[in-house]
Amino acid sequence: MLANKITKLLNIEYPIIQAPMAGGVTTSKLVAAVSNSGGLGMIGAGYMDPNQMREQIREIRQLTASYFGINLFVPSEFHAADDEIKFANHLLQPLRDQLNVQIDKDDLPHPKSVLENFYEQVKIVIEEKVPICSFTFGVPPKEVVTELKEHDIILIGTATTVREAVENEKIGMNAVVVQGSEAGGHRGNFINDYQESLVGLMSLIPQVVDSVSIPVIAAGGIMDGRGLMAAICLGAKGVQMGTAFLTCVESGAHKVHKEAILHSNDDQTVLTRSISGKWARGIKNKFISEMQEHEQSFPDFPIQNVLTQPIRNASTAQNNQDFMSLWSGQSPRLAKNQTVEALMKHIIAEAKETIEGL
Amino acid sequence: MLANKITKLLNIEYPIIQAPMAGGVTTSKLVAAVSNSGGLGMIGAGYMDPNQMREQIREIRQLTASYFGINLFVPSEFHAADDEIKFANHLLQPLRDQLNVQIDKDDLPHPKSVLENFYEQVKIVIEEKVPICSFTFGVPPKEVVTELKEHDIILIGTATTVREAVENEKIGMNAVVVQGSEAGGHRGNFINDYQESLVGLMSLIPQVVDSVSIPVIAAGGIMDGRGLMAAICLGAKGVQMGTAFLTCVESGAHKVHKEAILHSNDDQTVLTRSISGKWARGIKNKFISEMQEHEQSFPDFPIQNVLTQPIRNASTAQNNQDFMSLWSGQSPRLAKNQTVEALMKHIIAEAKETIEGL
Repeated sequence: MLANKITKLLNIEYPIIQAPMAGGVTTSKLVAAVSNSGGLGMIGAGYMDPNQMREQIREIRQLTASYFGINLFVPSEFHAADDEIKFANHLLQPLRDQLNVQIDKDDLPHPKSVLENFYEQVKIVIEEKVPICSFTFGVPPKEVVTELKEHDIILIGTATTVREAVENEKIGMNAVVVQGSEAGGHRGNFINDYQESLVGLMSLIPQVVDSVSIPVIAAGGIMDGRGLMAAICLGAKGVQMGTAFLTCVESGAHKVHKEAILHSNDDQTVLTRSISGKWARGIKNKFISEMQEHEQSFPDFPIQNVLTQPIRNASTAQNNQDFMSLWSGQSPRLAKNQTVEALMKHIIAEAKETIEGL
Repeated sequence: MLANKITKLLNIEYPIIQAPMAGGVTTSKLVAAVSNSGGLGMIGAGYMDPNQMREQIREIRQLTASYFGINLFVPSEFHAADDEIKFANHLLQPLRDQLNVQIDKDDLPHPKSVLENFYEQVKIVIEEKVPICSFTFGVPPKEVVTELKEHDIILIGTATTVREAVENEKIGMNAVVVQGSEAGGHRGNFINDYQESLVGLMSLIPQVVDSVSIPVIAAGGIMDGRGLMAAICLGAKGVQMGTAFLTCVESGAHKVHKEAILHSNDDQTVLTRSISGKWARGIKNKFISEMQEHEQSFPDFPIQNVLTQPIRNASTAQNNQDFMSLWSGQSPRLAKNQTVEALMKHIIAEAKETIEGL
């Protein structure tokens, strides 16, 4: 019933991809459980160094014989303006003092080292023969695409608009994830600015499907069989689900993060630039509220991300949601705390019911 | 195939409602053509005085024997602060001078007269026995709901979040339109602020469906049979389509407005408060761009609407899209200039194809 171009391309039973959430959510258990349940598990490797990547890839191979994938952040230029960093530190220092943490000035990322890390990550993907590699925050350079494809690695890009989807097809991606405005976590826009990028899936999917010939995977607010079938009606060949997997038993998200989602409503997520310097959607908390009026003035990603990290880590360690990043899509009311296997079974059963009801 | 609770409630063949776009779009020809094609035509009466309403209702009755509906704006409190009006006039006067138009100070609406007009509108709906009445910008007072229902008028509310949908059910609406962030024109939020109200339909529909027992009608970015079936998969019983009907031959939208939509992309609509004082989505033009940095400071709806009206009218008369309101949802690439009958046939044929393809 659900077999199509995407299940064939990715060698999976159901066209369901677990979103490659970075920052510790995609544990080996989570990734393997998704792949073992007929979907595609994905490592969110954006913040990883090459050794961590290699280790996790090997660990997952011990847990599943099925295909899985990995996601990399495409580095974009960023500018570390001293006055912006000074301004951010001025606002963040009282919180650091309150939580008794410090920031090491030497920690600040440099564009050159970020770029070097990306190329090393690509090398690991090839060496470890990861079957599928996806990209966020841009399209990688053409030579990277060519090299990965020469090694038979299937490539998936990310787009937030028709324009960005066309760019992904042009550079040679085998499929493209379209990220609707409903999506939790970071916006993947790279040509359009973030406001232009906030297109809802009801609009985004059919307009992209009409404009590219590669298969389209829908992401944003999809949590169950109803969302899966809606995305397919609109012309998508598969879905990528983040929040639905984030609250699963196997996910590495902190308990406080899971609980915050499980107790939130549709009107409680918000877009913020204060946490990382890049626009992202999460549950509104004290940090987001207090920083909101200043969010346009903070330094770019990944500088701001590093500046706020000790605060977020300390808040997490104290089980205090006030200063954590609580990424979530716009459907928190549909989230459940269950095993991946139960979630996958529920999605498929509900998809069948939905079709029968038409 | 598409018969359900909504087609039965509204006495229509297909669960397709033409959005009650105000400001001259919903000509009698448009409304009648939709009802004659098996959908529900709707008069956008928000800005009308009682006599205009009565006249149009009677005109439509000459053109169709089928059910049709009418939409009213629920008045909300607004404050006409002198300094805000002064600020707006300061910014708008150069445009008025350029277009050779003036604003009559006596034209500014007063909360009391707006409320009186609403009650007169309700009276006309009852006297003319309009079978269906919908509301935007809030829920009407309980006694209005009771009176209309005593006259067997079917009531439809508008909500942008679960919270607002629940409020609509509580007050006694027979159905509720959920307006996704994709929707063109004015936001219908009345409990949540406009940012909280920007929930995409992929998230909004299932969360509302799980929370109310009245039938849910989806609005925002839906243009064709794919969107109709997607909304139904998500649990909606019908759809309300604005932009798709706006570009139809029978619609009263100005040619320049239709052309602007027909030549726009998914990433070219924007939310603005500058045109009417209430947040609304339209194609970005010179007026929206130039006013963007000031939009938070303008007076409330409907004051700002009156202050900008001569500018918009003059721009329209000159076939100049720079200073018009170009309301559009996020799917302009799917818009076509065709008859209502052709659009309706296309939607139904595509809906059937979509189901067969599953």
